[in-house]
Amino acid sequence: MNIVYKSEPERGQKWAALVAQMAPAASFRLWPEIGNPEEVEYLVAWVPPDNIMQQFPNLKVLFSVGAGADQFDYANLPPELPVVRMIEPGLTSGMVEYVTFAVLGLHRDMPRYLQQQRAGLWQTHPVHTAGKRRVGVMGLGTLGEAVLKPLVALGFDCAGWSRTPRDLPGVQCFAGNDRLSEFLARSDILICLLPLTASTEGMLNTALFSQLPPGAALVQVGRGAQLNHDDLIQALDSQQLSAAVVDVTTPEPLPAGHAFWQHPALWLTPHIASQTQPESAVNALLENIRRYERGESMVGVVDRDKGY
Amino acid sequence: MNIVYKSEPERGQKWAALVAQMAPAASFRLWPEIGNPEEVEYLVAWVPPDNIMQQFPNLKVLFSVGAGADQFDYANLPPELPVVRMIEPGLTSGMVEYVTFAVLGLHRDMPRYLQQQRAGLWQTHPVHTAGKRRVGVMGLGTLGEAVLKPLVALGFDCAGWSRTPRDLPGVQCFAGNDRLSEFLARSDILICLLPLTASTEGMLNTALFSQLPPGAALVQVGRGAQLNHDDLIQALDSQQLSAAVVDVTTPEPLPAGHAFWQHPALWLTPHIASQTQPESAVNALLENIRRYERGESMVGVVDRDKGY
Repeated sequence: MNIVYKSEPERGQKWAALVAQMAPAASFRLWPEIGNPEEVEYLVAWVPPDNIMQQFPNLKVLFSVGAGADQFDYANLPPELPVVRMIEPGLTSGMVEYVTFAVLGLHRDMPRYLQQQRAGLWQTHPVHTAGKRRVGVMGLGTLGEAVLKPLVALGFDCAGWSRTPRDLPGVQCFAGNDRLSEFLARSDILICLLPLTASTEGMLNTALFSQLPPGAALVQVGRGAQLNHDDLIQALDSQQLSAAVVDVTTPEPLPAGHAFWQHPALWLTPHIASQTQPESAVNALLENIRRYERGESMVGVVDRDKGY
Repeated sequence: MNIVYKSEPERGQKWAALVAQMAPAASFRLWPEIGNPEEVEYLVAWVPPDNIMQQFPNLKVLFSVGAGADQFDYANLPPELPVVRMIEPGLTSGMVEYVTFAVLGLHRDMPRYLQQQRAGLWQTHPVHTAGKRRVGVMGLGTLGEAVLKPLVALGFDCAGWSRTPRDLPGVQCFAGNDRLSEFLARSDILICLLPLTASTEGMLNTALFSQLPPGAALVQVGRGAQLNHDDLIQALDSQQLSAAVVDVTTPEPLPAGHAFWQHPALWLTPHIASQTQPESAVNALLENIRRYERGESMVGVVDRDKGY
């Protein structure tokens, strides 16, 4: 198998060493040292080169290095080329850790307590039991399903919302736009894990926030372009939302002086919720290539009609 | 049954309402309105009155309102009087939430990321998988055992240390002073859930911190007097410790100007990790009284030799 990698060079070096161990017969080249372009069968990229099929006339599959595949310009990709998102256990466990941290922190008023600390204030606030805290996850793919497991185990009152109906143990599942308001009205802590599509772009806005219970909190771990930054600041300032934990923004990095840097009720992290782990990511990539070569279906193939 | 309550009045009102519902025949009085002291059989208190047996000559059991019983002056309590700590599911789940939050936050560098946020810095740091993060819990009582469960489920490499040998699923258990150094040397994140006794007082000090791996982190949810504040600051400043999450201090509240308020690598909360939940606490109290009256053993009886 002949693979070209086009993304962060540092990560590429790690992947190359792992491929050499795990599939010694494979050719794995780091962009721009691609060898003979006619021999390239598989491209792993965040942003692929322009004119991809002219560049690699025998390309069989395009793999995203990350969980998202919204960065690709599908108009310039031949319709028959399979595009595959990264689904691997390291990416999933990172997201589970981040979301569990964020939900527990919001549940236990930690943004407020850390503000109090810096103000030199020792003051306790009433605690609610997890069973009385309604958590709602938007997006019930691999990641959404995975983050719900520890939240259910910790005793939170969990619900999920997705485009197509799902059935998850211990989770009240809502599906479709018709049920969205009902789902939002019972979400004290809302987690966005939706893919970026035409219908989710800008979705986290004043209209949506106003359907949450007053004082609700947001965990934004979807995609930056889903969140209207000004609307979030307004919701926090009006106390419609009590706090937010935001890992993805648009643009990234945020510009100097942006309101998110200093807002006391907002915790911002630089898109670190979930990162592919080299070992498990390379394993997932090689396993998908082997499936493709055996004529089996790959894990994470993008449905271009849905956009994810 | 005749019960007197002597602790925070606000909580007392809630407990009184719950006792009225759950044991309508019981007498439950709030200090100082104790009625006839000769009729008092059970005292629930944080700090009991002086000369307790002269005050209540027919007292049968002294209950602590909290998980600790180190606040009692045992020299002034008759040796035959049973003293009982509070063990109830609300207290346990609160501790599980707090410790899971703190461990995930330390594991994922959150004190550093929140500092970066306020400094307007967008910068990522390498992630370790949970399986490569060694977590160690000191104190394997009801709370220690409970906090380990989600940490094991999240994939952390977990160990525990206790005075007497324990055997917990998925946890490497160490017991006794002879094994303490070995346990500390493999604890990247150390959680203190020990009771306060003569041998644990001041135990979290430079000598102990120096036995942890360089850059380890601390979660202090035991008792304030176990932690040497100056030694912690020194360990953080020298980077022997990378970060700490501290919920208990001595004194409480901390005085103005104390170094914990502003230290960038320290998260301080005002003794909120675990609070008794009125409903489950009253249920546990009444159940213990019924056990006592039936001649059965109560849950949480203090062993005065061990001090907990």
